[in-house]
Amino acid sequence: MLINKGHLAQPQDENCTLKIYVPFIEYQTLAVDTKNLRLITRLMALIRWVDPALAWDTSVYQYDEVVLPVNKVWTPEIHVTNGILTTMKHRSHDLLVSSNGTVQHSVIINAEVNCEVNLFNYPFAADECPVAIQTYSTGGCGTDLVLGELKMVDGSHGDWQTDFAALRKQRDDRNFIMVGLRIKYTNPCITLLLPSILIVLADLVSFALPLGGGERNTFKVTLVLSFTMFLNILNQVLPGDSQCSPVIRIHFCVCLILLVLSMLVSMVLTRVAQDGWVIFSCWPKCSVRKNTGDKEEKGDEVPEEAKADVSFVQLDASEDTQMLRKVVTFLEALNTKDMESQRCHELANRMDKIFFWFYFIFGGSYVCSMLSVMARYSCSVNHFDFWY
Amino acid sequence: MLINKGHLAQPQDENCTLKIYVPFIEYQTLAVDTKNLRLITRLMALIRWVDPALAWDTSVYQYDEVVLPVNKVWTPEIHVTNGILTTMKHRSHDLLVSSNGTVQHSVIINAEVNCEVNLFNYPFAADECPVAIQTYSTGGCGTDLVLGELKMVDGSHGDWQTDFAALRKQRDDRNFIMVGLRIKYTNPCITLLLPSILIVLADLVSFALPLGGGERNTFKVTLVLSFTMFLNILNQVLPGDSQCSPVIRIHFCVCLILLVLSMLVSMVLTRVAQDGWVIFSCWPKCSVRKNTGDKEEKGDEVPEEAKADVSFVQLDASEDTQMLRKVVTFLEALNTKDMESQRCHELANRMDKIFFWFYFIFGGSYVCSMLSVMARYSCSVNHFDFWY
Amino acid sequence: MLINKGHLAQPQDENCTLKIYVPFIEYQTLAVDTKNLRLITRLMALIRWVDPALAWDTSVYQYDEVVLPVNKVWTPEIHVTNGILTTMKHRSHDLLVSSNGTVQHSVIINAEVNCEVNLFNYPFAADECPVAIQTYSTGGCGTDLVLGELKMVDGSHGDWQTDFAALRKQRDDRNFIMVGLRIKYTNPCITLLLPSILIVLADLVSFALPLGGGERNTFKVTLVLSFTMFLNILNQVLPGDSQCSPVIRIHFCVCLILLVLSMLVSMVLTRVAQDGWVIFSCWPKCSVRKNTGDKEEKGDEVPEEAKADVSFVQLDASEDTQMLRKVVTFLEALNTKDMESQRCHELANRMDKIFFWFYFIFGGSYVCSMLSVMARYSCSVNHFDFWY
Amino acid sequence: MLINKGHLAQPQDENCTLKIYVPFIEYQTLAVDTKNLRLITRLMALIRWVDPALAWDTSVYQYDEVVLPVNKVWTPEIHVTNGILTTMKHRSHDLLVSSNGTVQHSVIINAEVNCEVNLFNYPFAADECPVAIQTYSTGGCGTDLVLGELKMVDGSHGDWQTDFAALRKQRDDRNFIMVGLRIKYTNPCITLLLPSILIVLADLVSFALPLGGGERNTFKVTLVLSFTMFLNILNQVLPGDSQCSPVIRIHFCVCLILLVLSMLVSMVLTRVAQDGWVIFSCWPKCSVRKNTGDKEEKGDEVPEEAKADVSFVQLDASEDTQMLRKVVTFLEALNTKDMESQRCHELANRMDKIFFWFYFIFGGSYVCSMLSVMARYSCSVNHFDFWY
Amino acid sequence: MLINKGHLAQPQDENCTLKIYVPFIEYQTLAVDTKNLRLITRLMALIRWVDPALAWDTSVYQYDEVVLPVNKVWTPEIHVTNGILTTMKHRSHDLLVSSNGTVQHSVIINAEVNCEVNLFNYPFAADECPVAIQTYSTGGCGTDLVLGELKMVDGSHGDWQTDFAALRKQRDDRNFIMVGLRIKYTNPCITLLLPSILIVLADLVSFALPLGGGERNTFKVTLVLSFTMFLNILNQVLPGDSQCSPVIRIHFCVCLILLVLSMLVSMVLTRVAQDGWVIFSCWPKCSVRKNTGDKEEKGDEVPEEAKADVSFVQLDASEDTQMLRKVVTFLEALNTKDMESQRCHELANRMDKIFFWFYFIFGGSYVCSMLSVMARYSCSVNHFDFWY
Repeated sequence: MLINKGHLAQPQDENCTLKIYVPFIEYQTLAVDTKNLRLITRLMALIRWVDPALAWDTSVYQYDEVVLPVNKVWTPEIHVTNGILTTMKHRSHDLLVSSNGTVQHSVIINAEVNCEVNLFNYPFAADECPVAIQTYSTGGCGTDLVLGELKMVDGSHGDWQTDFAALRKQRDDRNFIMVGLRIKYTNPCITLLLPSILIVLADLVSFALPLGGGERNTFKVTLVLSFTMFLNILNQVLPGDSQCSPVIRIHFCVCLILLVLSMLVSMVLTRVAQDGWVIFSCWPKCSVRKNTGDKEEKGDEVPEEAKADVSFVQLDASEDTQMLRKVVTFLEALNTKDMESQRCHELANRMDKIFFWFYFIFGGSYVCSMLSVMARYSCSVNHFDFWY
Repeated sequence: MLINKGHLAQPQDENCTLKIYVPFIEYQTLAVDTKNLRLITRLMALIRWVDPALAWDTSVYQYDEVVLPVNKVWTPEIHVTNGILTTMKHRSHDLLVSSNGTVQHSVIINAEVNCEVNLFNYPFAADECPVAIQTYSTGGCGTDLVLGELKMVDGSHGDWQTDFAALRKQRDDRNFIMVGLRIKYTNPCITLLLPSILIVLADLVSFALPLGGGERNTFKVTLVLSFTMFLNILNQVLPGDSQCSPVIRIHFCVCLILLVLSMLVSMVLTRVAQDGWVIFSCWPKCSVRKNTGDKEEKGDEVPEEAKADVSFVQLDASEDTQMLRKVVTFLEALNTKDMESQRCHELANRMDKIFFWFYFIFGGSYVCSMLSVMARYSCSVNHFDFWY
Repeated sequence: MLINKGHLAQPQDENCTLKIYVPFIEYQTLAVDTKNLRLITRLMALIRWVDPALAWDTSVYQYDEVVLPVNKVWTPEIHVTNGILTTMKHRSHDLLVSSNGTVQHSVIINAEVNCEVNLFNYPFAADECPVAIQTYSTGGCGTDLVLGELKMVDGSHGDWQTDFAALRKQRDDRNFIMVGLRIKYTNPCITLLLPSILIVLADLVSFALPLGGGERNTFKVTLVLSFTMFLNILNQVLPGDSQCSPVIRIHFCVCLILLVLSMLVSMVLTRVAQDGWVIFSCWPKCSVRKNTGDKEEKGDEVPEEAKADVSFVQLDASEDTQMLRKVVTFLEALNTKDMESQRCHELANRMDKIFFWFYFIFGGSYVCSMLSVMARYSCSVNHFDFWY
Repeated sequence: MLINKGHLAQPQDENCTLKIYVPFIEYQTLAVDTKNLRLITRLMALIRWVDPALAWDTSVYQYDEVVLPVNKVWTPEIHVTNGILTTMKHRSHDLLVSSNGTVQHSVIINAEVNCEVNLFNYPFAADECPVAIQTYSTGGCGTDLVLGELKMVDGSHGDWQTDFAALRKQRDDRNFIMVGLRIKYTNPCITLLLPSILIVLADLVSFALPLGGGERNTFKVTLVLSFTMFLNILNQVLPGDSQCSPVIRIHFCVCLILLVLSMLVSMVLTRVAQDGWVIFSCWPKCSVRKNTGDKEEKGDEVPEEAKADVSFVQLDASEDTQMLRKVVTFLEALNTKDMESQRCHELANRMDKIFFWFYFIFGGSYVCSMLSVMARYSCSVNHFDFWY
Repeated sequence: MLINKGHLAQPQDENCTLKIYVPFIEYQTLAVDTKNLRLITRLMALIRWVDPALAWDTSVYQYDEVVLPVNKVWTPEIHVTNGILTTMKHRSHDLLVSSNGTVQHSVIINAEVNCEVNLFNYPFAADECPVAIQTYSTGGCGTDLVLGELKMVDGSHGDWQTDFAALRKQRDDRNFIMVGLRIKYTNPCITLLLPSILIVLADLVSFALPLGGGERNTFKVTLVLSFTMFLNILNQVLPGDSQCSPVIRIHFCVCLILLVLSMLVSMVLTRVAQDGWVIFSCWPKCSVRKNTGDKEEKGDEVPEEAKADVSFVQLDASEDTQMLRKVVTFLEALNTKDMESQRCHELANRMDKIFFWFYFIFGGSYVCSMLSVMARYSCSVNHFDFWY
């Protein structure tokens, strides 16, 4: 061990730049933070450069290669330009120096990259993210990167699938790895889409529940609250609105409003079914009759009873008949009331049916248009705004 | 590589201060912690200064520029004065020294700044936060900062939108970056505002549900509990009360109390509708009658039956008539009971309607005043209390 | 730059102690962890001391003050004695040395202090916490702290309000900062107290719901489960039981048991209202009658029918009368049944009313006593058990 | 300051071991992670040893004691052998050296110890955990630990109560601190036990609810789902199954199955009460009659009507009687139906009562046996498996 | 202490490789992250190697062994090749050097390994994970690992059970520890499987609930929403879809769809039971009759009343008979209506029964086939894709 010269500065040259060869990069996507739109990657790069000061004469020192501790030798740095947090670690504490001064080393770079992924059609979103790789270089001086091969390992961990990773160049000194990402749609589909579709379907079928029985409104409010819960989950998963905000959020909002609307209409119709309660005077058939019926009941029947009482005193003769007449009166009153309520019921049922078809048609056409928007419209994001 | 002089102390001068030029700053808002009112930023600054001890004679050493490792050279420090946690990292391990001693370097500063953001009208809140930038300087000695240009990158990540970032000066040695922040209101609107509005609306419309059917109270308690849940979510999102506490919290409390009030009234009216249960004696019509009717039923009818039984023994003649009379008596009793309960119902309905209108008007006027307060009143916070 | 002497050891003296002057401390409460009863603070201290070895003759070296890098000079350490985690960081990498050897520096101390805050009357809790400040000193040797002024900044962040911070002395070498903390009661009040009060209130008013309608029990079980949820949230927020355990936890438990009791009583009374189901024989009026009535119905009526059938064969003469008699018998049976059930109802109602008043009075007096305990009793904690 | 000799290696001796005196240890339990069964502790140890190379002649250098920076002197290391994560930090950057070479220092050790706490009878669990303390020593060489006094501070923070901490020895070179831990049972009792007991109680009392009213099943499913929630919370709190797995988990499972069973039986009985729906032919009384009754209704009644119509045409004479006979037939049919349904009801009620007593007795005896198992059986864990 | 030679580089040799002996490895599984499929392990390795430069002549320096500080000596590095995060820490700051240059040291390696565990039959999943152990070696030069014994400690912490750990070799320089992992199935079984089975069971039994009573749909929607919750929990626990995606997720989806289907059918049948509401005209019996009945009621009855009124005026003679006829008409109408509704009920009940058996048979056969798939099909993952 003769050469512990401790050359810690960059090899200096006439043209003031040093060529750094990177024959091999191993790319791995560790995670994609959907909420904050960050891509957490791990790069392992083999680097090779020539440090003339580390060369030796093999005649003096007869070994061809020497292993040196890494902190006694100057090593180049590789930056991830668009990384928020970048840490470069040496893969080992030793590096290999050949007698001609060629140094071979491998480093591990963990980088967290801001990548505005296009989430427009969310559970089926796919986009490309650049991971810019550069070395230190200012004003002509510094180092120059020569990239070789790239290998992607293990692209299927976590919520996102890494489709490919390829080396590209934007300018001569602007190398980047283009990473193709695609969301794994099984989880969000099962957790978000499937339940929400089932809720909307259940809401649609819940029109089959009878208006009067008291079940429908409870049913619908349960659906609405569950849907709110799913909206909440969706918002916890998705980032705040950005350029290509996921259209599914708007879709969920519209669905929620539709559900609430159907619930409100159902509540009002429940009342209509019961006593023909109508604020507006446009459907006067049921309500007016009812009211007058009410008044008649209040106003007329009591006198009639009185009259009956009176008549009871007057005519003793046909007491039986009087009695029977009373019975009949009572039954007829019952019958009338029944028919009134039935008329209200039918009115409500008819309105219910109308609303159902309106709801069905409107909802269906809405869903169609939403699907076509999701399928056709494609939103594109400029991922290179960090290179101005 | 000749000059590894290891000058690790600040260049000393007569006036004991050194000018540090910062020609370019890249500002990025990493996150805003709404709960703790903290602003997490990332600054990348190019810095340039003159270190006479690093100058060399180009005749002796013929290179114009030299790359030196950063830990062998003194570098100035940039503080974020109002930062709770500030870490300055060198962007690369090398820096560039010119032959006249000018050193060029770039550093990355991650700072967490306490910023009492004005959240008064919460989902639409917007405020400005200062990020104070200073260097070491005590009692005349130290360094002096000369700032140049500022560029803001990527202001739309996360829950807050960074509108602008500009360099300002408060005093000669007090530079700061004024950062304009605005909350992205889509997420809280969808998650908090929309459901709460829908709940209040559903509560209002739930007055349409019939009192007696047993649905209304279940419906209302479901709404109240959901609203409580949203109040909980709101409090998890928002910070504790401070100077400009969000007015939406008070608003939610008032809404909750209104919902509970309407639920309680609805419960009491359900009882009123059933048997005219009134504690107070002010509406004696229904309840008194009922009670006396009850007593009559209890007191009179049984004797009457007895009487009927007696008369059954006595008069064999008009047995048919007796029978019929009994039938009629039974039916009349039914009828009377019915009318009693109907009177109670009507009373309850009328009170219900009165309360509804009271609730509607009070709630409406409350909402109007709340909106006007939110729109007009502006709360201002002194963000510079760290410079006393 | 001549004096890079590298004096890294503490200045040695005859009396073996060195006076460290701290003319100014800036105190800031970063957070209070209510769950683990920890106080996270940040101190910024200006420190000044004399290092004779760093003095120089101004005639030889003509500057009055010199800026030295901090890692070439010995610096004193300030500990937070009762801190679990304490990190002292230099505020800058440079410090100022005067020609007479006086060194001026400023350090930032982040400390996490265990502070058994008195949470007895929880949402309105307030207590004082000491942050002990000492320097290294063993057996006469070491350093001696002379504290100056203290300034508290920004005491209103987070869930706790810092009321004051003042320098105190317990013994000559035991300096501490007494920090007055007070919980911000808005958030727990809104999140915990308000809903729980509303739930208890709703439970009280739910006695107004009719027993038979089937709504009351559903309503009450909903309330009980919501209350359980709030009890859960409370326990997530509060620490485990300690010396001055919050009395609100016991209060919530009592409330929960009361709620469950009222639910159970309500369920039993529902049955009583329906068929006078009583296990105990103390209220035999309703149930006995019922049973005998049942048996009569089963036993007698069928023979009577038979009898009626028989009599139908026997007497052809007054067939009408027979028929009518049957009708009357049927109606009377209906009437009797009705009265039976009404008697049961009334019994249940009366018991319900009794229980309600019992519940109301007991609950009320309990609340009063609990409030008086919370207001009067004060629990005190010895915060200085780390200095034994 | 003369002796900056920089002796960074361990003092070498003939017997190759160095005695490290630890006169005082301060033990503090920071937290106990119940989920992962880890004990997080903090030890502050005073250590004293003799480094002959640091001794000096007081005649040459007249001070008795000297304060030296800690990174210029060799210091011994203290390990926590069974610690997963162990960090030893110097309490201060300076240490005290006497003229005879005795060095006095204090270190802080944060250790996370794997401790398989016996959680068999969970909310009342108590166990002892060893924290093994050793120093570096391999094959005769190294350091030897002489422990002194131990003081436990602040044992009541967090979810676990530290009862005692005592120094013990297993072998001559195996020192450990035995830490007595006991869970604070208030929190889990209130959060888990109390609600689950109340739920089971409510389920038991819910048998009082009438079968037919439609309330009982809703009530029971609510209870079951809440119980599932508590089972979930329990599993989030408790670790996976290990040697002494908490018996409360099995208990909760049994309770859940009992609850579900009672719910299913209740549902079936509801149907039995309504129309005597029985799959098995063992109780043919109600169902057979019903069916035949049904058929008779379908089969006979229509012809009878027809017959009645026919007879209506035939006999004009006793039209009244015919009419009356029809009325009576109708009423009798009603009556019969009523009695049928009542018989079904009674059958269901009787089965309900039988099941209730079965449930009550089985549940009660189960609870008793479970309690006796929890009280008597004690599970013991070998905590010293790290010393093989 | 004579030999502080500071040999920090790897011992150089002719064959350029150094043999590192690892006589003993202690393996411990710290945790398994099921969500991200990562294995967090801790290895403690004794390492021994010969550094000729550290040998000494025992005649000159009479000690056999010497303890040296670890940072003054070159130490080999052990990598975990497939580790995402690997940190190697020295177990102590000192190491033992013998006079012949043999160095004995022990290191602790914390590694986070990506291991695509086969989760196909999830709660009973078991798989093997390799932890590859290598040292630095490039192109002939470097170090060579000779592994000895392996001991596994404490395999039962956390959610996974470590069954075994054994040293294997894939190639001559590719050593790895094969770790056998098996999930502890108690927790997921209790938390996920048991409740979901109980929910499906309850859904099956809920067919016993009467259609008309209004309970069944509420019951079923509660079950569906709870099941959704469990599906959510499942997805939070399990990773996104990968090669051997857990089949239980698909199973849960199918169950959810079955539950929703049964709920929808139940809702439709409720309507059918009430008024024979059928969209399709295939079962015209009930609905047609009803409609015509309705029309008759509307159309005929009113005229009949009118006629009756007319006849009332005409024939005074047999007024009693008229009256009675009216009563009979009323009762017959009631009877007819009753029979209509009963017919609808029976139709609905029959369809309900058909659907139940269909549901039962389909569900049962589905469960059987799913169980057989889970038992038979075994999915295998290539764990060695990091060695390409």
